[in-house]
Amino acid sequence: MKPIHVGLLGIGTVGGGTFTVLERNCEEISRRAGRAIAITVVADKDLTRANSIVNGRAKVIDDALAVVNDPNVDIVVELIGGTGIAKELMLKAIANGKHVVTANKALLAKHGNEIFAAAQKKGVMVAFEAAVAGGVPIIKSLREGLAANRIEWIAGIINGTSNFILSEMREKGASFDDVLKQAQQLGYAEADPTFDIEGIDAAHKLTIMAAIGFGIPMQFEAAYTEGISKLTREDIQYAEELGYRIKLLGIAKRKANGIELRVHPTLIPTKRLIANVEGVMNAILVKGDAVGQTMFYGAGAGAEPTASAVVADLIDVARTMTVDPEHRVPHLAFQPDKLSDIAILPMGEVETSYYLRLRVQDKPGVLADITRVLADLGISIDAMVQKEPSEGEALVNIIMLTHRTIEKNVNAAISKIEALPVVASKVTRIRLEELDK
Amino acid sequence: MKPIHVGLLGIGTVGGGTFTVLERNCEEISRRAGRAIAITVVADKDLTRANSIVNGRAKVIDDALAVVNDPNVDIVVELIGGTGIAKELMLKAIANGKHVVTANKALLAKHGNEIFAAAQKKGVMVAFEAAVAGGVPIIKSLREGLAANRIEWIAGIINGTSNFILSEMREKGASFDDVLKQAQQLGYAEADPTFDIEGIDAAHKLTIMAAIGFGIPMQFEAAYTEGISKLTREDIQYAEELGYRIKLLGIAKRKANGIELRVHPTLIPTKRLIANVEGVMNAILVKGDAVGQTMFYGAGAGAEPTASAVVADLIDVARTMTVDPEHRVPHLAFQPDKLSDIAILPMGEVETSYYLRLRVQDKPGVLADITRVLADLGISIDAMVQKEPSEGEALVNIIMLTHRTIEKNVNAAISKIEALPVVASKVTRIRLEELDK
Repeated sequence: MKPIHVGLLGIGTVGGGTFTVLERNCEEISRRAGRAIAITVVADKDLTRANSIVNGRAKVIDDALAVVNDPNVDIVVELIGGTGIAKELMLKAIANGKHVVTANKALLAKHGNEIFAAAQKKGVMVAFEAAVAGGVPIIKSLREGLAANRIEWIAGIINGTSNFILSEMREKGASFDDVLKQAQQLGYAEADPTFDIEGIDAAHKLTIMAAIGFGIPMQFEAAYTEGISKLTREDIQYAEELGYRIKLLGIAKRKANGIELRVHPTLIPTKRLIANVEGVMNAILVKGDAVGQTMFYGAGAGAEPTASAVVADLIDVARTMTVDPEHRVPHLAFQPDKLSDIAILPMGEVETSYYLRLRVQDKPGVLADITRVLADLGISIDAMVQKEPSEGEALVNIIMLTHRTIEKNVNAAISKIEALPVVASKVTRIRLEELDK
Repeated sequence: MKPIHVGLLGIGTVGGGTFTVLERNCEEISRRAGRAIAITVVADKDLTRANSIVNGRAKVIDDALAVVNDPNVDIVVELIGGTGIAKELMLKAIANGKHVVTANKALLAKHGNEIFAAAQKKGVMVAFEAAVAGGVPIIKSLREGLAANRIEWIAGIINGTSNFILSEMREKGASFDDVLKQAQQLGYAEADPTFDIEGIDAAHKLTIMAAIGFGIPMQFEAAYTEGISKLTREDIQYAEELGYRIKLLGIAKRKANGIELRVHPTLIPTKRLIANVEGVMNAILVKGDAVGQTMFYGAGAGAEPTASAVVADLIDVARTMTVDPEHRVPHLAFQPDKLSDIAILPMGEVETSYYLRLRVQDKPGVLADITRVLADLGISIDAMVQKEPSEGEALVNIIMLTHRTIEKNVNAAISKIEALPVVASKVTRIRLEELDK
């Protein structure tokens, strides 16, 4: 069969990995795909870097638009990132009738609806396995492998940087700031780590998974996003003592009245497999009505793991590019005219359990006041621990785990509790999920 | 698009689950597949059972051959099992130009080469996601999701019955026989449990995974198969004390001189995620050169989890049945003319580490004799523990963990050790894998 010509936009970490993997495994890949797949042209602003990787084995230029307009390019791989020029180039590639493979979660989460509509109109594919959890084939699994199921919920550790920081804080009893610095030195966190530590990157990925899991449009703006930067080692330690581990989870859940779409630190029972996913690794739990719970685990970032997903997409696209579009897997797993308009629930309507930590005066009646507030709002307590005050300390830590309740009730309770004169500071609230059904 | 008509052969546990899932999720499935997929005819010897499930919503007959010959059937789902009539029916369906979906691992592991050749010739698909690890989309992940990789090894807990027995033996300190009885009462083990507990079922599944991972023909006869029926709670306990958990693993590994293909009880470090997969659950680790280690976890058996895989295959087949066969994913992941003839290594050539337990007389010089035998055969010891004899006992247990070595050397060492006068009984040998790279 005719070899496939690929144009690569951006040869940074993932682009370099893609070039390397495609070349190293070219024989294995053509044994699978039944044809050769080769990068024939690379565009990058940094020609020196690009040439040092490509080393004469493909054309190197600095004009990405020329790649997108090149009639000899069958598939464009977009690894520039961001929502600016990458979007323009992708739309132009689509307009030119080219298939696109991308790892750009921010772009898809924010502008995926527009991009997929354009691709649909032109009958081309936009493949994005690499956009979520690096080399873990979670997009294919959700979109095809679990296609028999009504997906009930998805819960994932989908940001390696945050997971590394939380693992280190727990294992070494270190503070957030110290571990962040270490992560930056190791190259696990960017100089500006906001996207990773504030949950934005995870929310991009969650938005994509929710869309293909439930058959809804991309709705990044409706996702609730809370990061890990305010977590203390104290809470991580207390959680551990109670049999829970704190992870930054992206959770998408189908409820009768809408879809929950939320990223936040979450206590999960230590005995769950996913609680033991440590360091920069990613893992996604998917609950389907037929299959039950499944989990997909692997490296969520890095040059070659992400390249693994990019190249898998290239093989898929190579295989189906000459196929009638109606026989391809739809971009969002469901036929474009069959997406659901079920609403994303506001965070106040979300139902979960809570870890609450209160600093209170060590006086009789304090607990009675607090539990009265909770009871009045219909919040029942699953477990409670009082930490003895240190020598000379007047304040004690009380930790409460609640049963499942609606978030707005918990917020109301927290306001009332914080107004009590015996309560000395802000209540620490971390959500808790048993992930048991 | 034209609805897809499915003929179902066998409506037992998985067949019933398939009927139920396809019906319950028909709307979700047609939103995905872009067309309706419906079971229109069911064949089962037990018409009463079949009718009670189908309840008038499809034709029920007792003649499987009539389904296979029915011109209105597009896809045949074979859930009869076994290698007798199932094989005949499948070949007949293929000869009639029908696509086939099956969960029959025994049939594929033993006769897959013949079946896939026949399917290839007729241009039809034989899909078999349900044959390995129930609802876990491991076939799709290996064949498509990780297609960019040179697969280095696969190691999986792929028999739920065995894993349940090992979990119970460890958690409750119970004997193999007692737990097996309990598993039979719970319906986790068959009246004749041989296939599960002797590793045969796992070897069927491993054979299939190795074929699609490495691009080799099915070679079930070359797989080494050792079950769990001789494991003692004592060894499970000793392993635990040393930081290891015993699992029945199916391991396929690519080496310079051939492929290792083996099922046996295996010590793995307790801190590995897969060591913590308990009960009837399945999990498969896949190591690819680009992606690193990935893991796929979920229910490996049961009506609906297995149905999840059967129905996913139906959707895949529905999507690609009108597509030119050369644009479909090849049965064994690699193009049929590109399979490799790399040999399966005999077990004596396999390289792994070992747990050895010896019962010896508690006398000076015993250890020197034993370690001399090991040293002479180039086997080095990673750790050694001597268990103090009980009051009045003359014999002590010595446990040794070796570094990686070739199995035939260990076998030679064991023969020599057993011949030593101070060694009181057969040496217990359990293989050990660190699974760390």
